[in-house]
Amino acid sequence: MGERVNRKPHIGVVGARKCSEAIEKLAFDVGYEIAKRGAILICGGLTGVMEAACRGAKEANGITVGILPGEDKVDANPYVDIPIVTGMSVARNIIVVRSSDAIIAIAGKYGTLSEVAFALNVGVPVIGLSTWDIDVPIIKAKTADDAVNKAFATIRQ
Amino acid sequence: MGERVNRKPHIGVVGARKCSEAIEKLAFDVGYEIAKRGAILICGGLTGVMEAACRGAKEANGITVGILPGEDKVDANPYVDIPIVTGMSVARNIIVVRSSDAIIAIAGKYGTLSEVAFALNVGVPVIGLSTWDIDVPIIKAKTADDAVNKAFATIRQ
Amino acid sequence: MGERVNRKPHIGVVGARKCSEAIEKLAFDVGYEIAKRGAILICGGLTGVMEAACRGAKEANGITVGILPGEDKVDANPYVDIPIVTGMSVARNIIVVRSSDAIIAIAGKYGTLSEVAFALNVGVPVIGLSTWDIDVPIIKAKTADDAVNKAFATIRQ
Amino acid sequence: MGERVNRKPHIGVVGARKCSEAIEKLAFDVGYEIAKRGAILICGGLTGVMEAACRGAKEANGITVGILPGEDKVDANPYVDIPIVTGMSVARNIIVVRSSDAIIAIAGKYGTLSEVAFALNVGVPVIGLSTWDIDVPIIKAKTADDAVNKAFATIRQ
Repeated sequence: MGERVNRKPHIGVVGARKCSEAIEKLAFDVGYEIAKRGAILICGGLTGVMEAACRGAKEANGITVGILPGEDKVDANPYVDIPIVTGMSVARNIIVVRSSDAIIAIAGKYGTLSEVAFALNVGVPVIGLSTWDIDVPIIKAKTADDAVNKAFATIRQ
Repeated sequence: MGERVNRKPHIGVVGARKCSEAIEKLAFDVGYEIAKRGAILICGGLTGVMEAACRGAKEANGITVGILPGEDKVDANPYVDIPIVTGMSVARNIIVVRSSDAIIAIAGKYGTLSEVAFALNVGVPVIGLSTWDIDVPIIKAKTADDAVNKAFATIRQ
Repeated sequence: MGERVNRKPHIGVVGARKCSEAIEKLAFDVGYEIAKRGAILICGGLTGVMEAACRGAKEANGITVGILPGEDKVDANPYVDIPIVTGMSVARNIIVVRSSDAIIAIAGKYGTLSEVAFALNVGVPVIGLSTWDIDVPIIKAKTADDAVNKAFATIRQ
Repeated sequence: MGERVNRKPHIGVVGARKCSEAIEKLAFDVGYEIAKRGAILICGGLTGVMEAACRGAKEANGITVGILPGEDKVDANPYVDIPIVTGMSVARNIIVVRSSDAIIAIAGKYGTLSEVAFALNVGVPVIGLSTWDIDVPIIKAKTADDAVNKAFATIRQ
């Protein structure tokens, strides 16, 4: 009568709403690799890095969750399967982090820095790709494939 | 390169953490009917009505999302596919409501009343099953099947 | 070196952004009585019942706190001494309730109902003035003076 | 009938719950200077830097607001005049930042870094005292007096 679920890992992708084509390509590849390995992609649901990652995940037939800052799911990018509508503005960043077993930070500005800081604060592993180069325990990665491998490696099975 | 998703409707189920067996049966049936009609079940992710609804949805091979008040996904009931971890206590009730195209309130106490009130406040249709009998525009239903039909009827296609 | 503070009671006033003149008068009187008795007025910081109550409290030289839903303190009504800016939309209702030792609900619509429900949910006493007449443990009051007396009576000293 | 208030500036102080005596002394002095210049002190309401700053502000007869992560005002340090109870865990950091016209970051770990990042994200000026030395537009200060002067200088009158 309803079997206990075998939950998939959740990998978060954080980054800016606007990004270069090179970063977009990187985000797409990260999303693709996350989905290919069977994890669910968690993100903030908007444009830029978030949209590219979701698009990549859908290319690999993955599941994408967008945790939105606004009050309406129409804000979600077209590659979000499951929009979660918070209406809580940037406070949703905390939910993106907490809902992820590990996050991959791609480039990004202050919003991304806040997510990295929150993740370190609450103990969620952070993989960095072309992101903030500061003296904190971010696990650096060089490629999308490397980042996703390192994210999976941090997850206790 | 990643196709735009065809999003499924989200139906929220709200109710108490503790409930009678009769209410649990009702919640199971509601979850089952939601999943059978192809919608995603959104709930608060804990026990009682929430767990029974998730169990019903999994019986019909649906997808279940649990928006948790605490800081750890271990709080999710075993029938939640996708735990969303808010760490924001009852403020997560607002996210349950906002993320749903319609909610079905089953029995419940003050937490449920607050969710009904929030839903009416932000314009999310409320279907009531054995719940608060107050002078507000709740759409009353008599059975699980009836409730889910009425929830779908409120969703603009 | 800095003396421990002797905290004043916090009384919350909840009600709608738009209200009749009669309700505005009632809210003004409630704010006035709260301040006269030395409590701090907590509210949502906007117009209608909130503004009238703040105006009353300032008439009696009280302190007023407005917990705002938006992202800018310019939204605060001109009688708020201390604007608290949440940027979390209606989730701020929960903070209004939790920060109050007791709340006085004046008239109101669904937002107010959600605050009443939250208060009952988390154990904050609710005094009702011309508000929702539903089967929950709201302490009914007939006048502003009566309401504030009853609010103070619920606070354990 | 209730005069429009002449609002005082709000200066936020962010820093860790545990700190050295030297940092505590610095935080006390910052709180003292904030209050002496007539601003309201906003903080997270707990121990360490927050408590020392509140103690300093009370020494100068200031007003202190503590925006608490937990569900009960008993968590507030004894120098908080006005406890704001959010029940939203670290999401309250965002409210501390948004409610401040400028923030002074004193030493601190990841929680403080997240507050600095949020402040930069939403455009609240950040003054740094012995805090994160990273490549972001933090205004560095050398003493408590210097920090508070610089905080006031950023506030548009």
